[in-house]
Amino acid sequence: MNGFICLDIGGTNIRAAFFPLEGIKPVKHLRINTIGDGQKVENRVADLITAIWPTTGEIRAIAAAAPGYVDSRNGMVISAVNIPGWTNLPLQELLSNQFNLPVFIENDARLAALGEWRYGSARGYHDVLYLTISTGIGGGVIINDKVLSGSQGMATEMGHVTILPEGPLCSCGHHGHLEALASGPAIARYVREQLENGVKSILTNDSTITSKEIASAAHKGDKLAKAAFNRAGEYLGIAISNYIHIFNPTCVVLGGGVSLTGELLLRPVRSAIQKYILNKEYLDQLTLVMAKLGDDAGLIGALSFIKENLP
Amino acid sequence: MNGFICLDIGGTNIRAAFFPLEGIKPVKHLRINTIGDGQKVENRVADLITAIWPTTGEIRAIAAAAPGYVDSRNGMVISAVNIPGWTNLPLQELLSNQFNLPVFIENDARLAALGEWRYGSARGYHDVLYLTISTGIGGGVIINDKVLSGSQGMATEMGHVTILPEGPLCSCGHHGHLEALASGPAIARYVREQLENGVKSILTNDSTITSKEIASAAHKGDKLAKAAFNRAGEYLGIAISNYIHIFNPTCVVLGGGVSLTGELLLRPVRSAIQKYILNKEYLDQLTLVMAKLGDDAGLIGALSFIKENLP
Repeated sequence: MNGFICLDIGGTNIRAAFFPLEGIKPVKHLRINTIGDGQKVENRVADLITAIWPTTGEIRAIAAAAPGYVDSRNGMVISAVNIPGWTNLPLQELLSNQFNLPVFIENDARLAALGEWRYGSARGYHDVLYLTISTGIGGGVIINDKVLSGSQGMATEMGHVTILPEGPLCSCGHHGHLEALASGPAIARYVREQLENGVKSILTNDSTITSKEIASAAHKGDKLAKAAFNRAGEYLGIAISNYIHIFNPTCVVLGGGVSLTGELLLRPVRSAIQKYILNKEYLDQLTLVMAKLGDDAGLIGALSFIKENLP
Repeated sequence: MNGFICLDIGGTNIRAAFFPLEGIKPVKHLRINTIGDGQKVENRVADLITAIWPTTGEIRAIAAAAPGYVDSRNGMVISAVNIPGWTNLPLQELLSNQFNLPVFIENDARLAALGEWRYGSARGYHDVLYLTISTGIGGGVIINDKVLSGSQGMATEMGHVTILPEGPLCSCGHHGHLEALASGPAIARYVREQLENGVKSILTNDSTITSKEIASAAHKGDKLAKAAFNRAGEYLGIAISNYIHIFNPTCVVLGGGVSLTGELLLRPVRSAIQKYILNKEYLDQLTLVMAKLGDDAGLIGALSFIKENLP
């Protein structure tokens, strides 16, 4: 069978899927640890491609979703904090030399945006804002059916914008970024701080507390847990309003683990957008939806990228 | 002589220029008041076009820079607060019916961005962020040589993003927008507040005080005046850093009256960008420059828009 090989390279796992020429259902799927056997990660990627290669049929292209800064125009991983040695790595060149095929690489969150636009919740829209809210906050933007990647492939760092200049410390070392206010760890941090301040809750002050546990407490009616989601949702709504003023999209897609809490987060997001939007006309043609592709967003985004770019 | 007619429609004046087919030096230039003679503004625009029409030669196209929300894809002025009656006005259709020519309309700040990109300070760059800082803060973005206008022509409201959620009131009624922190009136408001709080200065507390007078006091060494520009520059730097993380441009252009203060504003802007940037690699290929086209940015932007869009 002819088809494409797509990869989703993360800090923990590398996944590979062999897709047929049409459709988004993989024929075969493999997963390995990112780090192992003293091998370079790029060699593990190459071995995984070899492992998933079909015994008959032709591979037309390979695409990989990579974390961090990816310059897709030049096929370079500029830097990927979670992957040792991946600084200015010409991944596209390495793989296309080895497999003698067109190879595409792009940032994983941007590919997730592209996947949602081509096959998921944002199908049929031309101007899309995608945010993924989990341990971090990332995203992608589609403008007039094209993904925004920036001059060095470093655009759409949607979680690293200052929303509250004196706000909490972000994973990147700056203060008051959206990620420090509305990601899973940010929600947990707020709850821990409030517990330390003596706020009553069914939650106990524990450094391992997760946003999932907080969501579960909120569903049981816990006030602190609800307040934590309301606060995160408000900041998300502020940021989304900013992005609406900047991009004037017709579709906003929320993905990532924290978004799975659904209405708990969505209700305060919607009400903050109503409050912070510059002009109601921005909302006339705007849809706010949950992402559809889940864990497969990176793989299906990579597939979408092939279909956008293969002549 | 053959050429193009370009208009810059503002709340106070309407300017028209007749440009030859090549170059950006107008052959003829006219200016009238926006409001007058009990006429509808769109009729005054049409009369001005007739007045500037050359006696010999052919006009190939007309383009107009309009304030407020302009849906350039559909040729509509959605709303222009300073121009009475301009709500959902099909300006493009009105003018093309009357003059039987291709007509283009676009938002004035976006056209200024386009003008700076094609003929001004951002020439040769493909990814440009343009901000104009005067009574308000507006802007435009060029991505891969295309201007970002959004699904309804309402994108790039660069001054109306929340930087400080509990911050000062903006002209639009929201709090803590960039415009409320770094525009000319925002700088003046800060100075007046500090004078009321008893801060010493050579400036006197006067409701008509302008950012130009404050700049002049700063040049004389006045501490409050300098602090006012440092504060505005810091917030501008925060916003510009956010925009760099979002767009990853190679050129940032600052225009508008307040930017004419030069280093007074630029120094704190530069130092804030250094402080707030996520990663120094964003700055490796980035140029920060002052706008070049001054008051003609709208007209030359309109001319650029014709050249981008005329088949």
